[in-house]
Amino acid sequence: MKTSVSARELLFRDGVLTPSSRAVPEETPIAFSYGGSTHAVMMATPADLEDFAFGFSLAEGIITSPDEILAVEPLEAGAGLDVQVTLRDATADALTVRRRRMAGPVGCGLCGIESIEQASRPVPRVAAAGLRLAPEDIEEAMTALGRAQVLNRETHAVHGAGFFVPGEGLLAIREDVGRHNALDKLVGAVLRAGRRGEEGVVVVTSRLSVEMVQKAAILGASVLVAISAPTALAIRTAEEAGMTLIGIARGHDFEIFTGSERIVTGVAANVA
Amino acid sequence: MKTSVSARELLFRDGVLTPSSRAVPEETPIAFSYGGSTHAVMMATPADLEDFAFGFSLAEGIITSPDEILAVEPLEAGAGLDVQVTLRDATADALTVRRRRMAGPVGCGLCGIESIEQASRPVPRVAAAGLRLAPEDIEEAMTALGRAQVLNRETHAVHGAGFFVPGEGLLAIREDVGRHNALDKLVGAVLRAGRRGEEGVVVVTSRLSVEMVQKAAILGASVLVAISAPTALAIRTAEEAGMTLIGIARGHDFEIFTGSERIVTGVAANVA
Repeated sequence: MKTSVSARELLFRDGVLTPSSRAVPEETPIAFSYGGSTHAVMMATPADLEDFAFGFSLAEGIITSPDEILAVEPLEAGAGLDVQVTLRDATADALTVRRRRMAGPVGCGLCGIESIEQASRPVPRVAAAGLRLAPEDIEEAMTALGRAQVLNRETHAVHGAGFFVPGEGLLAIREDVGRHNALDKLVGAVLRAGRRGEEGVVVVTSRLSVEMVQKAAILGASVLVAISAPTALAIRTAEEAGMTLIGIARGHDFEIFTGSERIVTGVAANVA
Repeated sequence: MKTSVSARELLFRDGVLTPSSRAVPEETPIAFSYGGSTHAVMMATPADLEDFAFGFSLAEGIITSPDEILAVEPLEAGAGLDVQVTLRDATADALTVRRRRMAGPVGCGLCGIESIEQASRPVPRVAAAGLRLAPEDIEEAMTALGRAQVLNRETHAVHGAGFFVPGEGLLAIREDVGRHNALDKLVGAVLRAGRRGEEGVVVVTSRLSVEMVQKAAILGASVLVAISAPTALAIRTAEEAGMTLIGIARGHDFEIFTGSERIVTGVAANVA
């Protein structure tokens, strides 16, 4: 499936309308089905669907390790794609039990407080040791991310998520019309390449909402860097995860919200 | 509940780390419950919850008219808010029937194609007659939106959605960490003020994904204007709805993707 199309348009410039065209990203309903039953439908860019299936399944808590997925088969289905995920028996059984207990957050009979607790499940703690970064690493990671955004260069309308390992560079980049989808795809790509989240830094082109922190923590990444700002809940969740959260990373500059001990500069300072 | 908090941070500028602080938007799990059972949990800015309940209920197809909601009561619930919505009897009965038929798109036993059809339900057609805009109206609407974004001026991290009526100005503006939420809140605000969508233009600070077009069409707005670009599916859906879709509206300039007949300039032109 194509990830972008050329859309006809009228440009209004300097008071004059002129016929023109613009590359716009494709957006497709993508269902994830386990054992023939759909778990969710995401509006997403129809690319890297295997990566997406791994990252989504991990983020949703359906799998805890990539080897629990035996096969991923995207099928055309009406106006969208149905990504059929085949799980290992034990994982499939666990999902069946979980589905019996709760049909999901939508129209499921759960009361508000139960649903909110589900949405706010505890975030895993990331490894305290290991990764240390110089400010130059942050800049290099963001520059590499910008260069690797092929679909965004064409459309100026999609988000990117990358995985940067100091000394190795940007190991993977994934793009999507949705920032959560881009990160799910990246998580899948990193795991399927046999790499571990704690080896590198997750860099994203978007703002940092709480779900971005949750997904990076589930991957095991101890540092998350974004072009834009975090929400208050994203900051609290990064603290809970022991993660370094960096926002407004542009050019040489950035802002550290949590976990400043992983950033090594010539000048000592701490977030109080 | 507060909509922003001051977060402590370390600024990295010109090679030096300096303790500082930044206003960041609050993000809260907000459950919508009907008859004591949750329909969905949204991560959102905890403000304008009554508007949000009306707009969300309309977008989800739970109500078709604002008078089907008798009461909205936001209650504190654990880490979030549980917005209890009381429906008119007939509407509540219809929701119960619908819930029996399908527990919702998550883990509900629907197959992929059924779930995709649900996610791609037909968009209503907007009124063909009526609203005509000059290029100056587009610029005035976007300028007014920018001026009215109080929370964004503080945090630079939230989206805004506004309702602009030519000759009257910006009638309503709502902000949220999520662009879909901002638009749901705006739709609720317009309807609760007794206004009709076809009277005005919906202006948003975000990109145009298909759901933005669907929500504007459900409000009945015939023109949707955004700072950023549309997806291909958003354009196709706007065509289906008979809606005027304008993107990349910045300064005097903009780009018309569909429905150019509603934009009146001195120069004749049509999207082929």
